[in-house]
Amino acid sequence: MNSWGDIFRVTIWGESHGKQVGVSIDGVPAGIALSEEDFTADLERRRAGAAGTTPRKESDIPHIVSGIYEGYTTGSPLTIEFLNENTRSGDYKNLISHPRPSHADWVAQQKWQGYNDPRGGGHFSGRITLGLVAAGVVAKKILGQAVEFSTDIIEIGGERNKERFAEIIEQARMAQDSVGGVVECCVKGIGVGLGEPFFDSAESLIAHLLFSVPAVKGIEFGAGFEAARKRGSQNNDCIISADGKTATNHAGGIVGGITNGNDIVVRAAIKPTASISSEQQTFNFETGAVEPLVIKGRHDVCIALRAAVVVESAIAIALAELKLRA
Amino acid sequence: MNSWGDIFRVTIWGESHGKQVGVSIDGVPAGIALSEEDFTADLERRRAGAAGTTPRKESDIPHIVSGIYEGYTTGSPLTIEFLNENTRSGDYKNLISHPRPSHADWVAQQKWQGYNDPRGGGHFSGRITLGLVAAGVVAKKILGQAVEFSTDIIEIGGERNKERFAEIIEQARMAQDSVGGVVECCVKGIGVGLGEPFFDSAESLIAHLLFSVPAVKGIEFGAGFEAARKRGSQNNDCIISADGKTATNHAGGIVGGITNGNDIVVRAAIKPTASISSEQQTFNFETGAVEPLVIKGRHDVCIALRAAVVVESAIAIALAELKLRA
Amino acid sequence: MNSWGDIFRVTIWGESHGKQVGVSIDGVPAGIALSEEDFTADLERRRAGAAGTTPRKESDIPHIVSGIYEGYTTGSPLTIEFLNENTRSGDYKNLISHPRPSHADWVAQQKWQGYNDPRGGGHFSGRITLGLVAAGVVAKKILGQAVEFSTDIIEIGGERNKERFAEIIEQARMAQDSVGGVVECCVKGIGVGLGEPFFDSAESLIAHLLFSVPAVKGIEFGAGFEAARKRGSQNNDCIISADGKTATNHAGGIVGGITNGNDIVVRAAIKPTASISSEQQTFNFETGAVEPLVIKGRHDVCIALRAAVVVESAIAIALAELKLRA
Amino acid sequence: MNSWGDIFRVTIWGESHGKQVGVSIDGVPAGIALSEEDFTADLERRRAGAAGTTPRKESDIPHIVSGIYEGYTTGSPLTIEFLNENTRSGDYKNLISHPRPSHADWVAQQKWQGYNDPRGGGHFSGRITLGLVAAGVVAKKILGQAVEFSTDIIEIGGERNKERFAEIIEQARMAQDSVGGVVECCVKGIGVGLGEPFFDSAESLIAHLLFSVPAVKGIEFGAGFEAARKRGSQNNDCIISADGKTATNHAGGIVGGITNGNDIVVRAAIKPTASISSEQQTFNFETGAVEPLVIKGRHDVCIALRAAVVVESAIAIALAELKLRA
Repeated sequence: MNSWGDIFRVTIWGESHGKQVGVSIDGVPAGIALSEEDFTADLERRRAGAAGTTPRKESDIPHIVSGIYEGYTTGSPLTIEFLNENTRSGDYKNLISHPRPSHADWVAQQKWQGYNDPRGGGHFSGRITLGLVAAGVVAKKILGQAVEFSTDIIEIGGERNKERFAEIIEQARMAQDSVGGVVECCVKGIGVGLGEPFFDSAESLIAHLLFSVPAVKGIEFGAGFEAARKRGSQNNDCIISADGKTATNHAGGIVGGITNGNDIVVRAAIKPTASISSEQQTFNFETGAVEPLVIKGRHDVCIALRAAVVVESAIAIALAELKLRA
Repeated sequence: MNSWGDIFRVTIWGESHGKQVGVSIDGVPAGIALSEEDFTADLERRRAGAAGTTPRKESDIPHIVSGIYEGYTTGSPLTIEFLNENTRSGDYKNLISHPRPSHADWVAQQKWQGYNDPRGGGHFSGRITLGLVAAGVVAKKILGQAVEFSTDIIEIGGERNKERFAEIIEQARMAQDSVGGVVECCVKGIGVGLGEPFFDSAESLIAHLLFSVPAVKGIEFGAGFEAARKRGSQNNDCIISADGKTATNHAGGIVGGITNGNDIVVRAAIKPTASISSEQQTFNFETGAVEPLVIKGRHDVCIALRAAVVVESAIAIALAELKLRA
Repeated sequence: MNSWGDIFRVTIWGESHGKQVGVSIDGVPAGIALSEEDFTADLERRRAGAAGTTPRKESDIPHIVSGIYEGYTTGSPLTIEFLNENTRSGDYKNLISHPRPSHADWVAQQKWQGYNDPRGGGHFSGRITLGLVAAGVVAKKILGQAVEFSTDIIEIGGERNKERFAEIIEQARMAQDSVGGVVECCVKGIGVGLGEPFFDSAESLIAHLLFSVPAVKGIEFGAGFEAARKRGSQNNDCIISADGKTATNHAGGIVGGITNGNDIVVRAAIKPTASISSEQQTFNFETGAVEPLVIKGRHDVCIALRAAVVVESAIAIALAELKLRA
Repeated sequence: MNSWGDIFRVTIWGESHGKQVGVSIDGVPAGIALSEEDFTADLERRRAGAAGTTPRKESDIPHIVSGIYEGYTTGSPLTIEFLNENTRSGDYKNLISHPRPSHADWVAQQKWQGYNDPRGGGHFSGRITLGLVAAGVVAKKILGQAVEFSTDIIEIGGERNKERFAEIIEQARMAQDSVGGVVECCVKGIGVGLGEPFFDSAESLIAHLLFSVPAVKGIEFGAGFEAARKRGSQNNDCIISADGKTATNHAGGIVGGITNGNDIVVRAAIKPTASISSEQQTFNFETGAVEPLVIKGRHDVCIALRAAVVVESAIAIALAELKLRA
């Protein structure tokens, strides 16, 4: 479904080439100072423009259409819309008979009996994450200034040396290809006690939202998969002070599903953009044969670049929900 | 919260050393043949007994107390209870002042102001997963016989050669230590179209449940973190037949959050059991100093062994929910 | 919260004098033919214009901004917006110190610490019901043409003779007063088996939505309060045919919370419009005394007139949710 | 579904003639002193025994099986079970072919294809309300001692003179018939600001729960249906003091869906018990004809007597949910 959250409830809608994408956020406490400018910084991080990002540029101006009065949130639903301006639908019809590999094209047709909007991926477009970023901005306001997010791309194409990232991306672009990456988000100052056993562990809510973000294929907390390779004596985090700080943070700030006051550390694996410009083989449902496909349109070489702020926003939303429950 | 699911709703309760742990499952279709024997095989996989598992042995007999009439599910809530028999509460009081590293002891005290049941981890005990396994059995009945689960431990202590697993576990046991592992679950026959955009992607629901399982610290689908290291041309799965089968399955059977008819492949990183017998340093809240702690009680050397069926059950529950929504 | 429904999920937003009111509807099956014209008839029933309704007239043109492609629903969220055009905010500030009797003015200030939008009742405005009517139109499409709604005002100001309604309303208007009424909705063709025990009985879902509609203060099904005055032998409905038809319908088509195939009959008591033009006494929080208040602005004499279609829409939404669950 | 509530989540299960009926309550704050004795008073009000109630007597002893440690709630799910002891299933098979009028027998068979438990109404039995009463006791603890409930039967068989109630019930019993009644619940001390616009108004949540209670066919708040007969000048409640007290309370303590600090006043219409001892006509699905039916078993003459505490409990649950959200 297109809503998430029990208290901080985020509802999204829109299609890549429709009139708009939007988000309505319920459960926002009254009295938070908020203007359209507050969204600029995070939306800018999500925008195209840098090397490795799509040439499709949208102004991405947020229009707050409800929930604000005289500069403050009112306690009623906060709704934010983004017009779609720079759409070039061109001919997407061929994708119906000849769907793109590793895209939702074919499953969407199956699921909705061909009634889905196929233009630009329709509702599956990464453009829908605009609403997630907007909600993330509001979530961070709820969490307050004591909570700090720092989010980095720590790996691209298997390389962890950041100085080589630009080169790797450029090589992929030259090859009419794309490349994946890993995003790491660290959250400081979240405090002790967020998370609800059994099913609504902090990890569960964060992972639920992160796996909603297109292109995310793996999530780990703290030592993550590395923890599975260790012994308990190596992985256990010794508490060293009365406020729960630990000598190490292999748990990534969450034990028993509940925050323990240490930094929350989450990593998300972002697959390479499925849309690549070079020719690919895939099934043509019209001819009944595997045939070459060349995808037109404008695409990101490394979607991890723009996904970083989306990952951060998703984590902020999950934490705001948990904070409002606590 | 202790409930999960919109249609197939699983509610769990209980503490490690309380009277019972239980589960009530709502949304079970009427007319499914079900007896207490149906739970035996999966409960047996979760039971202690093998090398590397805890010496605490419970009979784990499921008592169906509602929702069955003349051998068939009735459509009203199916409730299954497991008595706690083999409890040795001993003295857990010292864990209040001197909490175990990487356990929920301290956060639980903080969150519930000391009112939580501390005996055996209380509600944080792995024993609560009995209900998850029971719900998984029912979920598999709903999915039907065409859906096959195969779940393996593919890595222990960083080693992928299965022939060495017993040795690695024994070495950890001898060292009064524990060791982590990776569980992989493969689901065949699930069909096309399960999963709901945006927030209820198949990956989101599966991950939500898996991160509820104690000790899980990472999840990946298909190529997972490896996908982040690849180029699009390497990672994309070419469709090769009219039923959506792909030449490779880097997506792990899910694209755009929706199942595409290929095998679902999920891996979960299981951290080493936090409770180890050897001495550890951790903060003593009574003395205000970091001091040595020796944990008594009976514990699993490699909790991944018993977690495998729990991981499988969680995946089955998520898929049953999605199937009933479709 | 401003969302309702598990499968057919309706999310609303907006304020009386804000930019727009809107609704996003999730869970709409793909492939339903839908255009903006489909909303005209029900929106017209809700519009002002007739005797007894407010002079504030809005064009109430529905703008579908997502979820439609080539004239059919796509399966992704259907979002419909209505611009606010004919707003005259004037000076609502005095209502903050001198709140209107039987209005939400004062409780809203208390609940949101004065941050609520006070203009025209803000989010408490009856204008928010536009979204409910729009969702009702979609709900009826889901229920299909075999399901027929007939909704009447059966009582105004205690009078049941419809020929006298116009006169009673005119008398109230002349007296600068307002008057209440009772709306009855009858639903034919709904079939057997909608409704879920225990908490999601058909009556529970319908009542939940109806008590969201401003001014509704009572709900009854079938014989309702009259049933409480009868004996069982008088109130029981004898089944007379194999399809479950009953000789009488005191149950209003619902037994044990589940539809029994007979007509669903619901009545809603609509209180007289709280805003009246004549002078009223109420507490002035600035002076600390009970003082006379004259409410300016444009108001309905008998809100039951326009509420009828809103009541019908709410019932349709509840039934669509239950149908999609079944 | 058999769960209700977002924060204070009540899950119920059981059948009239199964092993037990039970309730699990999530979201109970830690640290509430609670023992099995705390349930005695309200369970006693629900028990049979007085004139007009069924001869089936159950001990109704609550067994708390989770969520309590050393006399206090722990913050984890509180589960309470009641064994079924005094069951006489006899032959309910004839009710399958010859269903009781105004009972759920036939719709349950239709909805669950004959797999429902037919004994004693199965999951539709009033016995399921034991869990509601237990949850109500906990809800009242959460609301605190400042909140007072007073619940009365104000009408039986259309008579409002309480002195005549015993006589009316006895007459119905002698006639092998049953009789309906009206329950009124007044809640003092609830404070200002409970209730959430738009869909989760205080009235919506209360009505949702009340229409889950078997036999409830109408609900009204404050003046209720009488309000629909009045003018605004008669029905409006003038605020008379700075704490929001009103001169009259036609609103029943709720305006705009939010509590205004005055007494909450709710009335529920309880239909006469559907099971009566005298012969009734109803369709025999075996013979295909309308034929006389005599219902055996033990039944309440006036279910309103025992429903009073159930109505009160349902209201308490709704208010606890709203309080925990606020």
